[in-house]
Amino acid sequence: MHTTAHRVVIIGGGFAGLNVAKGLKRAPAEVVMLDRRNHHVFQPLLYQVATGALSPANISAPLRAVLSGQPNATVLMEEVVDFDVANRAVLTKGRSIPYDTLVVAAGAGTSYFGHDEWAAHAPPLKNIEDAIEIRRRVLNAFEQAERESDPERVREWLTFVVVGGGPTGLELAGALCEISRFTLCKEFRRIDPTQARVILVEAAPRVLPPYPEDLSAKARQALEEMGAEVRTGWAVEEIRSGAVALKRGDECETLLARTILWGAGVKASPLGKKLAAAAGAETDRGGRVVVTSDCSLPGHPEIFVLGDLAHFKGADGQPLPGLAPVAMQQGHYVAARIAARLKGRELKPFKYFDKGSMATIGRRAAVAQMGRLHLSGTVAWLAWLFIHLMYIVSFGNRVLVLIQWGWSYFTRGRSARLITGRWEAEGQAPPTPAASSRRLHAVVA
Amino acid sequence: MHTTAHRVVIIGGGFAGLNVAKGLKRAPAEVVMLDRRNHHVFQPLLYQVATGALSPANISAPLRAVLSGQPNATVLMEEVVDFDVANRAVLTKGRSIPYDTLVVAAGAGTSYFGHDEWAAHAPPLKNIEDAIEIRRRVLNAFEQAERESDPERVREWLTFVVVGGGPTGLELAGALCEISRFTLCKEFRRIDPTQARVILVEAAPRVLPPYPEDLSAKARQALEEMGAEVRTGWAVEEIRSGAVALKRGDECETLLARTILWGAGVKASPLGKKLAAAAGAETDRGGRVVVTSDCSLPGHPEIFVLGDLAHFKGADGQPLPGLAPVAMQQGHYVAARIAARLKGRELKPFKYFDKGSMATIGRRAAVAQMGRLHLSGTVAWLAWLFIHLMYIVSFGNRVLVLIQWGWSYFTRGRSARLITGRWEAEGQAPPTPAASSRRLHAVVA
Repeated sequence: MHTTAHRVVIIGGGFAGLNVAKGLKRAPAEVVMLDRRNHHVFQPLLYQVATGALSPANISAPLRAVLSGQPNATVLMEEVVDFDVANRAVLTKGRSIPYDTLVVAAGAGTSYFGHDEWAAHAPPLKNIEDAIEIRRRVLNAFEQAERESDPERVREWLTFVVVGGGPTGLELAGALCEISRFTLCKEFRRIDPTQARVILVEAAPRVLPPYPEDLSAKARQALEEMGAEVRTGWAVEEIRSGAVALKRGDECETLLARTILWGAGVKASPLGKKLAAAAGAETDRGGRVVVTSDCSLPGHPEIFVLGDLAHFKGADGQPLPGLAPVAMQQGHYVAARIAARLKGRELKPFKYFDKGSMATIGRRAAVAQMGRLHLSGTVAWLAWLFIHLMYIVSFGNRVLVLIQWGWSYFTRGRSARLITGRWEAEGQAPPTPAASSRRLHAVVA
Repeated sequence: MHTTAHRVVIIGGGFAGLNVAKGLKRAPAEVVMLDRRNHHVFQPLLYQVATGALSPANISAPLRAVLSGQPNATVLMEEVVDFDVANRAVLTKGRSIPYDTLVVAAGAGTSYFGHDEWAAHAPPLKNIEDAIEIRRRVLNAFEQAERESDPERVREWLTFVVVGGGPTGLELAGALCEISRFTLCKEFRRIDPTQARVILVEAAPRVLPPYPEDLSAKARQALEEMGAEVRTGWAVEEIRSGAVALKRGDECETLLARTILWGAGVKASPLGKKLAAAAGAETDRGGRVVVTSDCSLPGHPEIFVLGDLAHFKGADGQPLPGLAPVAMQQGHYVAARIAARLKGRELKPFKYFDKGSMATIGRRAAVAQMGRLHLSGTVAWLAWLFIHLMYIVSFGNRVLVLIQWGWSYFTRGRSARLITGRWEAEGQAPPTPAASSRRLHAVVA
């Protein structure tokens, strides 16, 4: 079944890369999908794993299972390290994989705005391991609070700071409110989980900055009604174990919190810069590769970059945002583009069809913008739910996930509440949080 | 709701400890459950997690969720390090927890028969982390085989050795056969997963040594029909990364296998020895604490040891085996014993009611002994399935698990096929397996 004709190598099994692979099912091409992980992750629901509502496997699918019915597709678990554009080859550790057409969709990671040392104290939420680590920290915080006798320390364990007022931050903060107010409310004897403080910090003047103002206000209101404190206009100055120092103008404040989650910055995969260097292309300040109107590199029609790794100028002159619909539409387009070229035909430039965007805060609380239509509350939440359910179900035989998800939503139960990993019983993920948080407090306050 | 009257401290939330806690629901006692993990694990199904059929959360339940409806029970995530029997206190890291009655049910870990250095190359299957690690290694082996071009190395990646012919070893070997023969058979392009070798090694002359001979023979036959090689009478001499050296009399043989799983030895928790030293009790060669006929320590009627940590002499003079039914029955008994004593009454000694034992090899393949009744094949498998389903369902609202389990059994699908952890794309869990396996080969062969 393997053609030796035209080989398309795809880097990255996310929304963009997977849609290219699937779109080439009937093309006279050999498709080689490279990913350093064996699974595709439905990223929009990662926060559900991080907060114990779903299991990792519920929102993941092995890449080779997804492509098993596509005989022209080979999946290889490889970590790409560089490119040899002159010889048309992708370099992985110890080997070279030749291509005729190259599709780079390696996505984005987390940016700590030059403060990578914050990562240990404020984990990001980009992949399954991150989600498991956040789940561990959140559940462990309640466990430690129950063990603790010093009321000040109990308060620190029951304070949760979420940095970033974008969709991820809102989802996490909302889920933390639901966990403390509903899921755990009857399970502790010494602490009252409903007293947990959930604080969302955003440097911009409002949450969801790219959204219309009315929806930002609705989102903030929904979050506050769920019990969260929303601090807009406060920039993070410093993060240490157990403490976040904030600044607003001349005001300084330090939050003592044993659990700090990072939902703020995004930066393109380092493969973007390597590819740009190898192919003489440009990257923007976020490390994204600037592509032409057909998602290829200038001067390299055989190399496509798409999804979160690409800087594609939209109709308004701004780069398209790093959203799943952009990645999926680009994936479909690039597959069609490659297939057409194999037949000697050309396609019109890629055009993003913006169906709108939505963010969820919790049960029956979401905001959605669809053109001029602004939705919030139950209606927006149902729309969000419907779209996400459709995707999950379309993804193989996932009806069971749907049932489990519905179950946990309607019972407010969270069955995937496992603390796994290293530090289970130690009470402190990084060493000596109390000491370092006090030090920070003294320095900053 | 907290009584200050009589405090029962239970160490370990396994079958034994949890049944003590639940059995004291209506007793005039304060129950404090200590566990270093936050969850109870249904150990008999761990191998299903290790082989991708179920998610970790499916076979686990947060201890505090299980006991949330029991107001006299407090759950604390604590790691017990020692005992102060004179002052009736349990010592954890940095604190002392007083008790009136102490129940120690800390279970058992894995024994490498004095070769702890084998653990890195042949992981055990005792907890959720172990299961995830085995899942990672098994799935990664197929991924690496697909990447590999050297046929000898492909063979090494596709060779799986399971050490130990007890129930765990049979379950793992059977599941490996099912994965390679059914689940993965259509998902690879360069290798044929059905060619994977699965080798079960057992030092005794037959698998399932404690079972009647006819059932051992049936189990072996079932495993061989599924495609496994069964090596009985072969002792493991040495395990290195990528290789197992076997010995039978004067014969030596080295199996080159990148995936080696350990299902052999069991040893009691080190807390057993600490408790025995503190209370002047005896331990047996396996580190189990020798208890009296009411599961308490000689001279210490306020201290009970049960489950896998206890050496309880059965009717035949032999210690009771480390099985879930023993732990559960002892748990029920000890709860009743404590409750009776609080009322000034005594109970008859504990007596184990042996309902039989069963081991499963795979779909429609199991063996079961119930008194003089010996079952095998589909009947035994249905009995096994029924008993395990009943337990899982009785454990909170677990109907969904049942559905998912049934689904994966009948479709032969395994949806929880995630490779997570450190070494995803590196191709070698421990460093330089090839080099060290060759060295071993030279030394042994």
